Amino acid sequence: MTISSAIDALVPLLGDRLARSKSELDHHGGSESYFPLTPPDAVAYPVSTQEVAAIVRICADHKCPVIGWGAGTSLEGHGLAINGGISVDFARMNRVLEINPEDMDIRVQPGISREALNDELRATGLFFPVDPGANASLGGMASTRASGTTTVRYGSMRDNVMGLEVVLADGRIIRTGGRARKSAAGYDLTRLFVGAEGTLGLITELTLRLHGQPAAVSSAVCAFDSIDGAVASVIEAIQLGVPVARIELVDAATAAAVNAYSGMDFPEKPHLLLEFHGSDSAVQEQAETVGEIVVDHGGDGFRWSTLPEDRNRLWKMRHDAYRAILASRPGARAIVTDACVPISKLAEAIAETRADIDRTGLTAPILGHVGDGNFHAILMIDESNAAEVDAAKALSGRLAERALRLAGTVTGEHGVGYGKLDYMQAEHGEGWAVMTQIKKALDPDGIMNPGKVIRRN
Amino acid sequence: MTISSAIDALVPLLGDRLARSKSELDHHGGSESYFPLTPPDAVAYPVSTQEVAAIVRICADHKCPVIGWGAGTSLEGHGLAINGGISVDFARMNRVLEINPEDMDIRVQPGISREALNDELRATGLFFPVDPGANASLGGMASTRASGTTTVRYGSMRDNVMGLEVVLADGRIIRTGGRARKSAAGYDLTRLFVGAEGTLGLITELTLRLHGQPAAVSSAVCAFDSIDGAVASVIEAIQLGVPVARIELVDAATAAAVNAYSGMDFPEKPHLLLEFHGSDSAVQEQAETVGEIVVDHGGDGFRWSTLPEDRNRLWKMRHDAYRAILASRPGARAIVTDACVPISKLAEAIAETRADIDRTGLTAPILGHVGDGNFHAILMIDESNAAEVDAAKALSGRLAERALRLAGTVTGEHGVGYGKLDYMQAEHGEGWAVMTQIKKALDPDGIMNPGKVIRRN
Repeated sequence: MTISSAIDALVPLLGDRLARSKSELDHHGGSESYFPLTPPDAVAYPVSTQEVAAIVRICADHKCPVIGWGAGTSLEGHGLAINGGISVDFARMNRVLEINPEDMDIRVQPGISREALNDELRATGLFFPVDPGANASLGGMASTRASGTTTVRYGSMRDNVMGLEVVLADGRIIRTGGRARKSAAGYDLTRLFVGAEGTLGLITELTLRLHGQPAAVSSAVCAFDSIDGAVASVIEAIQLGVPVARIELVDAATAAAVNAYSGMDFPEKPHLLLEFHGSDSAVQEQAETVGEIVVDHGGDGFRWSTLPEDRNRLWKMRHDAYRAILASRPGARAIVTDACVPISKLAEAIAETRADIDRTGLTAPILGHVGDGNFHAILMIDESNAAEVDAAKALSGRLAERALRLAGTVTGEHGVGYGKLDYMQAEHGEGWAVMTQIKKALDPDGIMNPGKVIRRN
Repeated sequence: MTISSAIDALVPLLGDRLARSKSELDHHGGSESYFPLTPPDAVAYPVSTQEVAAIVRICADHKCPVIGWGAGTSLEGHGLAINGGISVDFARMNRVLEINPEDMDIRVQPGISREALNDELRATGLFFPVDPGANASLGGMASTRASGTTTVRYGSMRDNVMGLEVVLADGRIIRTGGRARKSAAGYDLTRLFVGAEGTLGLITELTLRLHGQPAAVSSAVCAFDSIDGAVASVIEAIQLGVPVARIELVDAATAAAVNAYSGMDFPEKPHLLLEFHGSDSAVQEQAETVGEIVVDHGGDGFRWSTLPEDRNRLWKMRHDAYRAILASRPGARAIVTDACVPISKLAEAIAETRADIDRTGLTAPILGHVGDGNFHAILMIDESNAAEVDAAKALSGRLAERALRLAGTVTGEHGVGYGKLDYMQAEHGEGWAVMTQIKKALDPDGIMNPGKVIRRN
């Protein structure tokens, strides 16, 4: 057995940092999504890059799968050990290694969480903007090319990772990118590993770009009678170049769910939630501009505030929306779709999806990062009801096809993992074959997170 | 002969669009830099992607080198046919294919020039921001990951190319990326080909991100007694988050050269040249903030203006600076360095470089995109003076080592080409071996722009 001989070789290296209890294995074989439990054969807790390299070399020698594990918040089964093997959990590699406030960059280990990172930064006047909602690990966020509510202003992990240290499939350690703000020195390996989902190597360090905490922040909320009016407002604000820091849509069903879950009193209508960053006067000007836009598109009761408590309440509600929706149907699981389309197609994409959901009879609130053209339908399913599960999967498939028809992508931010593999050919055509060639060049035995992004040979 | 048999096969395909006159060959074997003439064996002028694919397939069959050619403005010998072969000139593939003003994106052929593109966009209220100075082709700009004066605000080609069509080394045609503002669907092939300098394939179409023309634009200029004061001002402005659209340094020698060349009357001191984009009030606020910063750092006579004629004069002068410097020593050639360092190291990098230049006795004005930490020394050489050429090359080498010691890169924006190949090992270590593995996977016979970025086997 290749996997068991790898484990035999790992025991002397890691001692009790190689876990094999059922609870540990099950934890690393589960996910927040609807995928079946697929535990690894062991969980390694390395404490250094050298140790990660040693683990990978042993696994390479024994052709044993290696799967990275961050916070376990992936929605597409990225961490699942579908072919067994070793889950490499970065929980003990979670330190800040170097902060350079003058250059607004920071070097961290991959296990640090988004919230812990920003806690460390609070006193510096700087922050790391990428915010996928979940308290994900930075290594996981880089590996899935995460984005979220602030991407419309600050970009995604693609834009905010300056450099990486990576352990390759043969145990070599490389450094990519660096601390210069730009470089034209050869192939962009940083961007190749960002979004590679651990299939080309394991990220063991990240150099991240930081941003100055804005002098002023204001938030705003506005109800609409129709999603169309909300989306038209978004399009106009983006086209006018208003540098909104967040611009989020929640539909009427989401508003109802958060009212019940968080004790809010939103009208049960579509809403836009916004945030503005800048100087005092810039923040006021942006809010006023957007205030006029939303009125033109039928928005009702645009309220803006510079009070931190109003803002925190608003974004806590937005971050809790997924849990609120799940709580609205106790015992249900969710299939979360992730289409992203050019903004001119967004109203059409959402309207068709809403009609499709209504035809199936599923419960599926819609919310999203509409400034980027990215929206999620939360398809609520009773896992014991096979007809419902099938209907949800079929609907998810139709939405993926719709996104591609509208010049979009099947996954704006959740990644391919295991769940979106079936759409890669449709989205990329021969480009997927090129990805497969790169995978084979860098991981010829297919040990790095097999069965994700690229089909296993 | 592999090359001559390829040419025999190309003649029936291209007819008189396969040029072999000495003037054509010499034109495609020269550069703006100090490299020796290295002409290709023929120049192809394709008119379609299918034709590019047919050319590459023929060259693949005959193992004949294929080198892309845009506007010929590269400074690192990217287009030189150092192993002979076919230069593929995209002059006849220079059309706009599709504009989507609502989504602020555009699809173009690679031969279109930066200025022609912005001329086409003028009526739309949109513009393409990447501005390397030279009127380069968009295909060339993508291939070298170009940036320039506006990158501090709008990013480089890395950030503004949304998708590509590429002809691979075996003639396959792929599409990468797309029109969605973000995607997590697999490996970032777009970013792999941006900056690959034609060594992995030829770009035959680009989808570009556009930006709204700002409501207001103002420019400013300020003299300093020392470069230190200018650089300290830049650092503070960037750290305060002032969204300057351009922030350029020219040193005293550059100011003298442009005075002579463009009939200006700048004091012969270091200067910062700035531009601000935004609403009327935002532009005013930015200019006032920077005005206060420069006074704190000894800046003299900060003048800002919203008049287009003042602005145009300023940037024409900046764009002409390279020619002005060349004209200051008739008959001279230039070696243009391209270090880029973290901004906290910029003053040190420039001061050491200035001292190094003074020690060698070379004439070498310094200017740069200091908001990104990127600066150029224009090393003026008399090509017939071997000692001077050697001194300039040695100085260029010391600057590359200095950039790496200061956590920077040997090339901020000009690319590797032929000229920076010797520094790739020092900058990337084992990462360069990974680049070589990717090159071998996608171009096993090494026909795509051989000898650039990656060493020829």
